[in-house]
Amino acid sequence: MDIGSIGEFGLIERIRKITKAHNPDKNLLLSIGDDAAAYIPPKNRITVITTDTMAEDVHFDLSYTTFFEVGWRAGVSNLSDIAAMGAEPGYAVVNIGIPLKWTVENIEEIYRGMTESMSLSGCVIIGGDCVKSEAKGFISVTVTGSAEKNRLAKRSEAKPGDFIFVTGSIGGSRAGFEILSKNRDQTDYKKSVNKFLKPVPRIKEAGGLVKNFDVRCMIDISDGLSSEISHICTQSGTGAEIIGDKIPVHPEAKKFAEKNGYDPLTYALASGEEYELLFTASPENSEKLIKSDFVRDVCPVTKIGFITDKKGIFVRIKDNKVPIAERGWNHFS
Amino acid sequence: MDIGSIGEFGLIERIRKITKAHNPDKNLLLSIGDDAAAYIPPKNRITVITTDTMAEDVHFDLSYTTFFEVGWRAGVSNLSDIAAMGAEPGYAVVNIGIPLKWTVENIEEIYRGMTESMSLSGCVIIGGDCVKSEAKGFISVTVTGSAEKNRLAKRSEAKPGDFIFVTGSIGGSRAGFEILSKNRDQTDYKKSVNKFLKPVPRIKEAGGLVKNFDVRCMIDISDGLSSEISHICTQSGTGAEIIGDKIPVHPEAKKFAEKNGYDPLTYALASGEEYELLFTASPENSEKLIKSDFVRDVCPVTKIGFITDKKGIFVRIKDNKVPIAERGWNHFS
Repeated sequence: MDIGSIGEFGLIERIRKITKAHNPDKNLLLSIGDDAAAYIPPKNRITVITTDTMAEDVHFDLSYTTFFEVGWRAGVSNLSDIAAMGAEPGYAVVNIGIPLKWTVENIEEIYRGMTESMSLSGCVIIGGDCVKSEAKGFISVTVTGSAEKNRLAKRSEAKPGDFIFVTGSIGGSRAGFEILSKNRDQTDYKKSVNKFLKPVPRIKEAGGLVKNFDVRCMIDISDGLSSEISHICTQSGTGAEIIGDKIPVHPEAKKFAEKNGYDPLTYALASGEEYELLFTASPENSEKLIKSDFVRDVCPVTKIGFITDKKGIFVRIKDNKVPIAERGWNHFS
Repeated sequence: MDIGSIGEFGLIERIRKITKAHNPDKNLLLSIGDDAAAYIPPKNRITVITTDTMAEDVHFDLSYTTFFEVGWRAGVSNLSDIAAMGAEPGYAVVNIGIPLKWTVENIEEIYRGMTESMSLSGCVIIGGDCVKSEAKGFISVTVTGSAEKNRLAKRSEAKPGDFIFVTGSIGGSRAGFEILSKNRDQTDYKKSVNKFLKPVPRIKEAGGLVKNFDVRCMIDISDGLSSEISHICTQSGTGAEIIGDKIPVHPEAKKFAEKNGYDPLTYALASGEEYELLFTASPENSEKLIKSDFVRDVCPVTKIGFITDKKGIFVRIKDNKVPIAERGWNHFS
């Protein structure tokens, strides 16, 4: 269906129905349909707010991504940022730039994907703006959340002696992306492709880390592990040493890298949009974490190195210490 | 300067410097530079949140708008929504989609414009996302604010018998836009052009209306008065009667309309991006407002009609009652 046939307000009404599928929340006073949305913020908690844009042919390619997946990923990139603060997502507002070639059904699928990924953590879309775009499409999502006052996980809180951990495995998202974008055979790479198209943010996991293991320094892997560790070190005024063979490279990423003449470790360190968490913990909390049920029952975590007081980030590969290159995703370069 | 030469993180650092010009706020815990920004929300107040996108060649045209003005207007469109709730702006996050042709200096000007318009009401940019856009540029701004619990001004609170008011005058923004976009002589239309390029949101005025005259139904004029009155009536389940010759048509808009063969009233009713406020007040509060110093000292307001219990929106022109057409801005039509 052509958007012109229902107009901007008809479109908003359809979107409202999709996003309202979820909980009537007693703290939500006004949702889609007024000049602004309004809610009662949770008592005695800090507000966190993050925003992320996905632009057509930069962050998503409709030749191998469904509209549902575009929406899903737009939601996740924000939810993952909220997770990385150790916070709980609350509400979202969404801007969508719509090229005239997109149909009403396409747009509905985007909102279904977004709503579904957000509903995993109880996050509700409560407002937004739908505009025409003269060229490519784009989606800008803003998510607010809340955290306990003294339990915010910042990039700047790494301390020399802290151990560095990563959740899950890395590299899969990059492999999935390359298989899709280069139209390769997906048979042996189903998990990687799925990791790229339908990533799951580590919200509950982040909450557990902050609450039970006093994690105060965390970042999500959106640009690549090497880039994220560099953010942590810059903002904490520290260095870091990563133990190369401890990095949990996704098995499919390892296979894909080897098959295509890349070094698997280097390949994985530069893999963006993983939405895994990179965090540090004190030696005592690291010990406690490794021995806990958390690793078995909630989320696999791997100790991959430690924070140093001397600046510089190195990867130890056998007996060599190689300075790490910030090889993550960087727009405009 | 080419963005490639400083990269995404170099650009963010420059933006951070521009936006941080303003107040070190003790409630602001984390600003640009982490996964999310964080702040302590004002106690015992409701949070309001709104978001708006300005897309190149849809909402702004760089052939007659400076980058500073683009930023200014992107800020104002959101601030005006916060005003329309009777709320105070707090913080903003900004997404920018950057075509490769924009220079670092262009982008800095956008942020200078945005920061300057926001600083008028103490609103501070605390986060965002800078992405490459494959085609046209765009800016999506989200602003949060806060309001007193029982003083939220909604679209749905108009009551039959309420009088309808508008702040300032209308039509100027449309005249300004048409003069600029058609490259006409600006000599006699300087105020209109300025109204279009550098609108000022009615934040303090809205606060005064809500606090002193118990205004509970308000909307800002972003799509056109006829469209906004229709939103109020739909959501309040009422009708309205507007007295045609009471509408405060901007003198330059009247002149421009007459010169170009339009009916000035119809012209003004469809003028968008005015960022004036349309609101209703009970007969007692209306009386109080009209007689108050507010109208003289703070903001001109004009009584333009009244709310009816019978559905339908009419404009009375002499002895005729003409049904109002929703002639405001509507994307995709």
